[in-house]
Amino acid sequence: MKFAHNSWTLAQPMHVRRPSFVFLRQELPVRLANIMKEIDFLPDKLLSTPSLKLLISWYSQSLLEIVDFLEKNPDDKEGPDKVSHLPHAFKFTQTLVNVRNRHNDVVPTMAQGVVEYKDAFGVDPVTNQNVQYFLDRFYMSRISTRMLMNQHTLIFEGSVNLSLNPAHPKHIGSIDPSCEVVEVIKMPTRLQKCCIIEVNSKNPNQPLHIVYVPSHLYHMLFELFKNAMRATVETHETSITLPPIKVRVSLGTEDLTIKISDKGGGVPLRKIERLFSYMYSTAPSPVYEDNSRNAPLAGFGYGLPISRLYAKYFQGDLQLYSMEGYGTSAVIYLKALSSESVERLPVFNKSALRHYQTSIEADDWCMPSKDPKQLGNSKRIV
Amino acid sequence: MKFAHNSWTLAQPMHVRRPSFVFLRQELPVRLANIMKEIDFLPDKLLSTPSLKLLISWYSQSLLEIVDFLEKNPDDKEGPDKVSHLPHAFKFTQTLVNVRNRHNDVVPTMAQGVVEYKDAFGVDPVTNQNVQYFLDRFYMSRISTRMLMNQHTLIFEGSVNLSLNPAHPKHIGSIDPSCEVVEVIKMPTRLQKCCIIEVNSKNPNQPLHIVYVPSHLYHMLFELFKNAMRATVETHETSITLPPIKVRVSLGTEDLTIKISDKGGGVPLRKIERLFSYMYSTAPSPVYEDNSRNAPLAGFGYGLPISRLYAKYFQGDLQLYSMEGYGTSAVIYLKALSSESVERLPVFNKSALRHYQTSIEADDWCMPSKDPKQLGNSKRIV
Repeated sequence: MKFAHNSWTLAQPMHVRRPSFVFLRQELPVRLANIMKEIDFLPDKLLSTPSLKLLISWYSQSLLEIVDFLEKNPDDKEGPDKVSHLPHAFKFTQTLVNVRNRHNDVVPTMAQGVVEYKDAFGVDPVTNQNVQYFLDRFYMSRISTRMLMNQHTLIFEGSVNLSLNPAHPKHIGSIDPSCEVVEVIKMPTRLQKCCIIEVNSKNPNQPLHIVYVPSHLYHMLFELFKNAMRATVETHETSITLPPIKVRVSLGTEDLTIKISDKGGGVPLRKIERLFSYMYSTAPSPVYEDNSRNAPLAGFGYGLPISRLYAKYFQGDLQLYSMEGYGTSAVIYLKALSSESVERLPVFNKSALRHYQTSIEADDWCMPSKDPKQLGNSKRIV
Repeated sequence: MKFAHNSWTLAQPMHVRRPSFVFLRQELPVRLANIMKEIDFLPDKLLSTPSLKLLISWYSQSLLEIVDFLEKNPDDKEGPDKVSHLPHAFKFTQTLVNVRNRHNDVVPTMAQGVVEYKDAFGVDPVTNQNVQYFLDRFYMSRISTRMLMNQHTLIFEGSVNLSLNPAHPKHIGSIDPSCEVVEVIKMPTRLQKCCIIEVNSKNPNQPLHIVYVPSHLYHMLFELFKNAMRATVETHETSITLPPIKVRVSLGTEDLTIKISDKGGGVPLRKIERLFSYMYSTAPSPVYEDNSRNAPLAGFGYGLPISRLYAKYFQGDLQLYSMEGYGTSAVIYLKALSSESVERLPVFNKSALRHYQTSIEADDWCMPSKDPKQLGNSKRIV
């Protein structure tokens, strides 16, 4: 099972250099190799775009650089003058920094490739389905590898131990063992009058906290508030006051649930799924900015699907339900227990392969006729 | 395409005897034959239960009785003394009454068969998946055939034209061309203090009405209120007052949406799908009552999945959103336009066949390990 994944949970993050090194030099190549196999199954027309070629070169290069450490002894040094060199375990950290930086623009680059494909060949339901399936897995894989690399570099990079920075002494890398959810919610809502209601069914009147990655939670909340505010403003342009966006947070024994409700006029049920579609995204391809990578991704219209991936990454979910003519509620589900917050990772196997081979198939439910008039037509029946 | 379906929409119900007869004598056998083919693909162990054998005999008998009219001239009479006999078009109505009564207990009988199967062989995920797929289609087929038969008999049975009964002079059979949604909501809520808020974005301050079948809407609402009330009472046993169940109705250009929200403590996300499962239904099999058929089906725990089928029957949906530790919202989506309220019918074809042939397949996402401790274990990796 050389290519089997090793998921880990928020209950037990790595915090010692040697085992972390030994884990990552094996696990990162497994994840990169798995997703590179799936890239091969994309439509040739997409693979042949300049964006995809560039992106694939990044993955190949990074895979090589990390695999290079597989047989190395963590404490050995190399080179003619060993003294002048760092042990492999230390070099590894620098390699991870290089890899992470190399992959900074993977999301917009892949998105650009999809745009190029769309402009050239348009969209059909089957391609959309395959691209949706692939990108959910591709971006999830990326979230997981960056999580691992960030943890290692944040904790072990150089002499400064960032996990002990004065602002967040208790954090382990990017993980907050006692993440006060409502405090994170208040960040993106600063600009907006917004009422937050907490329900802690476990410990009434106690603040809600879980083991989580605040940056992930912030990414989701930023996206959902952005959408809620836009809908609210656009729907109430003419009125003097804007209806508030309401947030409810509830902690149960299994789930921590965050509901964000706006009165932005809502969306018909038929269009909800499209809001999560990469290919049907109607957002214009943005002007490229070098620092765009640092902001929660906007511009390609990938904000919602990628926010859902962040939620699913640790076995949660993100769902929208809307009342057309009134407003929309977005619900984030997170695991309340860190022991259940296990990485959710794509695996390349026959089941996955089958998804890329799906062709157009007759619907097993009859489609509504475009011409209802004809439906009761007795001539066709007698 | 002899076996092609002929869906119809709420925009154009049949109301003239002859075309209705000509339509039904062809369409009803098509629907019965389609679903009987699918019954054949159920597990032998289920097919061999007494309940299933009885049920299949009903379908065969009804199919024969209706097909018998295919070649008949609607106006001809039969028998030695033609004068004493009714024309076929009139006999047909009586036949439909017999068929409908014969099939009154199809839902509990099928459910009983599933219970017998479960008691004997237990449940596994694959069987559950196949049974779920089948029963959603089977019960949907039944909803559609009963809808057609009810329309015909209500409008044409005997001399009394029920569609012109004084209580509902404007109804066409079971269809209300101007169904005031809030009035139907008030029926099941009579017993319970419950606030209803209307939003009519099309015609502000006008009452909400759509073309719909009030009995279907009542069936869904009854089920959802029953669940909401039970959750509320069980969660607040100790308190003097119960938090009200809130209902919001919104009419947009595409959807009419009804949201029913309780503060009944909610359900973890993990358990939501099971609430719609026929096989994992935890309800004890009920004591059989001859009149149980008349009440919205309860006892087998089929209330939710079948309510969802009623919503989907005319291209709507029924969804649950819960916040564990707080409460649950149930949302009914209906088409606002009668021209879009087209029957949704199962079709037996290769795609359907494939579903009954699914076997256990590796998950294309890695499963959370049962033993997180092992995940970071470096021994396995070096």
